[in-house]
Amino acid sequence: MTKNDRPAFGFEVLQQDGAARRGRVTSGFGVVDTPAFMPVGTAASVKAMMPEQVASTGAQIILSNTYHLMLRPGPERVERLGGVRKLMGWDGPLLTDSGGFQVMSLGPLRNISEQGVSFKSHLDGSIFDLTPERSTQIQHMLDATITMAFDECTPFPATYDEARASMELSMRWAARSRSAYVARTGYGQFGIVQGSVFEDLRHHSIKALTDIGFEGYAIGGLAVGEGQEAMFSTLNATCPAMPPDKPRYLMGVGKPADIVGAVQRGVDMFDCVMPTRSGRTAQGFTRRGPVNIRNARHAEDMRPLDESCSCPACMKFSRAYLHHLFKADEIQGLMLLTWHNLQHYQDLMAGLRSAIDTGLLDDFAAGFAEEQARGDIPPF
Amino acid sequence: MTKNDRPAFGFEVLQQDGAARRGRVTSGFGVVDTPAFMPVGTAASVKAMMPEQVASTGAQIILSNTYHLMLRPGPERVERLGGVRKLMGWDGPLLTDSGGFQVMSLGPLRNISEQGVSFKSHLDGSIFDLTPERSTQIQHMLDATITMAFDECTPFPATYDEARASMELSMRWAARSRSAYVARTGYGQFGIVQGSVFEDLRHHSIKALTDIGFEGYAIGGLAVGEGQEAMFSTLNATCPAMPPDKPRYLMGVGKPADIVGAVQRGVDMFDCVMPTRSGRTAQGFTRRGPVNIRNARHAEDMRPLDESCSCPACMKFSRAYLHHLFKADEIQGLMLLTWHNLQHYQDLMAGLRSAIDTGLLDDFAAGFAEEQARGDIPPF
Repeated sequence: MTKNDRPAFGFEVLQQDGAARRGRVTSGFGVVDTPAFMPVGTAASVKAMMPEQVASTGAQIILSNTYHLMLRPGPERVERLGGVRKLMGWDGPLLTDSGGFQVMSLGPLRNISEQGVSFKSHLDGSIFDLTPERSTQIQHMLDATITMAFDECTPFPATYDEARASMELSMRWAARSRSAYVARTGYGQFGIVQGSVFEDLRHHSIKALTDIGFEGYAIGGLAVGEGQEAMFSTLNATCPAMPPDKPRYLMGVGKPADIVGAVQRGVDMFDCVMPTRSGRTAQGFTRRGPVNIRNARHAEDMRPLDESCSCPACMKFSRAYLHHLFKADEIQGLMLLTWHNLQHYQDLMAGLRSAIDTGLLDDFAAGFAEEQARGDIPPF
Repeated sequence: MTKNDRPAFGFEVLQQDGAARRGRVTSGFGVVDTPAFMPVGTAASVKAMMPEQVASTGAQIILSNTYHLMLRPGPERVERLGGVRKLMGWDGPLLTDSGGFQVMSLGPLRNISEQGVSFKSHLDGSIFDLTPERSTQIQHMLDATITMAFDECTPFPATYDEARASMELSMRWAARSRSAYVARTGYGQFGIVQGSVFEDLRHHSIKALTDIGFEGYAIGGLAVGEGQEAMFSTLNATCPAMPPDKPRYLMGVGKPADIVGAVQRGVDMFDCVMPTRSGRTAQGFTRRGPVNIRNARHAEDMRPLDESCSCPACMKFSRAYLHHLFKADEIQGLMLLTWHNLQHYQDLMAGLRSAIDTGLLDDFAAGFAEEQARGDIPPF
């Protein structure tokens, strides 16, 4: 397919159930059925997974981190190698973050100004500058299907004045990010709504971003310690004010219950390291809640981790074997539990999509919460 | 299949080319075409690989280590879980070592007597005893298709008197191992020839073992620092004296060139951690010799590691990506390079088998050596 007959970037809402939306993102590199969860492939690899394994779970889009890739192997090199998708063999759309979130997390290693952020690499201490223009350029070099605007993720808690100043800075950066963005058929750029937990600031932010105009809108500054209740009430105040005809992406969320609640409030896209990171630290997600597979009670349990799951970890191996692999520090344990967790998340998203299609989302959410509350299957 | 209609353990030589043999081991759990290479799955996992990935490379049998499994998860537990094959989902024959080699390597942590070896666990310092009887019993509990006799791997160098005393101890232990072995249809037990580099001791050992009678014979005490020349001359002296109608297994060997030379001298089976361990330390084997994928010259090389290889690492990914994965400490790098190395070894074995079938082994070996000597493909 040449550039000229690439499908355009777009979004349509196919079905609604209350505030929840069943939709489809189209892009030059594949469609994404929403609500969607994006596995995180920080450094151009979804850790411990092969790309076709990621796709086999139902994932249609993945996320990579600009901060990590700008340090290693560097955007110029990635560009020469054909971009992240080609380099890693991911045959679908790719979203990159702006690098801002990681850079802000560097604490004393970074310095914020109106211009942008200067910071020291955590790898070798060398100095880098990240601005809205440079972040946008880097994401272009990474060949991101969806580019994120460069913003400041307002820390929590923040006073109203702090949250306002931070949001206004992010809005000025959003305008500069949009100016630096090179529009191409099949690609899109998302602005990021900030404003902490303050409804009027969120509304100001949405107004500022829609005046600029993006292909989609993310909600930033949540899942940073405010708790589920504050997150949901912020979503209640934010989502209805967002453009109904553009995808809504809640960044860095989250636990399965967070995702269910956010979908009920009108969010379309999610990303989180939780399924992959937990898969490397022995936590498996099941219909009946999380399980620590290192726990001694699994040592001779020949049952699958989750009998309703179709992933290889559950179809071919027992809890006893997963337990052994983690106790023996075997890489195969990380591989299997990561795979399972990604399958679990994608199955949850498929369930949410079906429930919206049939107008039964509230029933689905109630059943989900009830099953989670039961806790893990009892020992033999 | 019930126990009663399991195929019996056996071996037949299908073709010869000089001293080399093209053969087939039959067992209750599958056939093994020889010459064969056994990937090492120390703790009931071939590190960084799924069982079906191991099988996809052409491997028909794998090896697990009694020492590691006796410490964790323990043979009683493995037995309750149905044995190593069932636990790890390996649908083919399994060979276990006797534990002796690892225990001898513990140095000051172990004490050898006529009875056996007592040692401290490297995991928690607790005391274990390993005797010919206990080793054989443990391998039974692990459900090993091929059980190895418990022996002392004579260190190199050894004086003639040391080598003789060590070999004679191993022969007494071999008799006790055979007495402790429970014969079952479809299973077999191999004795281990010792005698260091001394031809008459090797012959004495073969005589002692064949007087006991095993289903196969291994050659131990090589690849312990004696060098390729001494190894090959010992094989020249040993193989012709071994029973022609039983499989011959050269333990812990080795580099590709070692395997080619040993096959030319009449060896049928091999095992080595080299392909898997090297795959985790950035060394890839190619037709043109080993490659360190961390080397900077690969950083933008979009060519496959080995263009004649059919593994996923070579079919789907570039040297540049493998380089990036290792620089970024990504688990996927270990997965891909391990897979490649196992494929490389199995392709080598398939090539050796074809060459024997067609009577062209010496040509194959010459071509192999020539190609390896050319060194890696030049940079762009």
